[in-house]
Amino acid sequence: MRDWIALDPSECESLLRAGVVGRMAVFDGTRPHILPLNYAVVGDALLVRTGADSLLARLPDRTPLAFEVDALDHDGHRGWSVVAHGRSERIDSLDEVDRLDRGRGPRPWVAGTRPHHLRLRWSSLTGYRLGTGWDLRAAMPVRRAE
Amino acid sequence: MRDWIALDPSECESLLRAGVVGRMAVFDGTRPHILPLNYAVVGDALLVRTGADSLLARLPDRTPLAFEVDALDHDGHRGWSVVAHGRSERIDSLDEVDRLDRGRGPRPWVAGTRPHHLRLRWSSLTGYRLGTGWDLRAAMPVRRAE
Repeated sequence: MRDWIALDPSECESLLRAGVVGRMAVFDGTRPHILPLNYAVVGDALLVRTGADSLLARLPDRTPLAFEVDALDHDGHRGWSVVAHGRSERIDSLDEVDRLDRGRGPRPWVAGTRPHHLRLRWSSLTGYRLGTGWDLRAAMPVRRAE
Repeated sequence: MRDWIALDPSECESLLRAGVVGRMAVFDGTRPHILPLNYAVVGDALLVRTGADSLLARLPDRTPLAFEVDALDHDGHRGWSVVAHGRSERIDSLDEVDRLDRGRGPRPWVAGTRPHHLRLRWSSLTGYRLGTGWDLRAAMPVRRAE
């Protein structure tokens, strides 16, 4: 078994920027929810797109969110996980969406319109890895070019 | 792009039983958290193990939880996701832990003692897939034998 080792914030940010898919956690006042989502880091914020009738589209602005990316190597029993905490921010300006989205925005896999963009400017980035001596990025199934 | 298609509860349960790793979401009163965890379904409940100083070990009993398992095929832009909702239940009886754990319990990857067992008897199972014509189980990186 492998040791739990904290990642420093710059390492967390680099992994978060390299990712394509993560999971968002949000509390609706009654219970928590988790949703896998395509995302992109644009500037210093994380950006996701969502449908008009989704839980995320209905969130009050400034709702606390947690967004997690990870890579798990089942054979090696190793992995890493990074969590961005922050508050939701709905982007309503089409100009701003267009600017954020230009060639770098999140690319949903699901059909149908995903008109709402939600931004999460993280207030903290925390993460850990299990064990040393292996490449964190190589464990990612897909990652963005640097 | 692919259509979002709801999974029925029996399909959700079958996928949940086949999984090995998922992500737990919990709200601590201030913000949500997400933790990747090894798990096992034993009987009609999901079981995880955790260290004595962890967030999960400190949860009041009956805290609402969401546990998500998924398989994402990045090349095919398809995937599925299943979420179990329920409340936390700490298992303190060593006899019960031993009974639950016999050969079928969750197997943490991380070193150190994980003395606490947390049970989630789900009150709802919901899930979806993106697109048809592909095998949900085959998309899982690792799964339990039936």
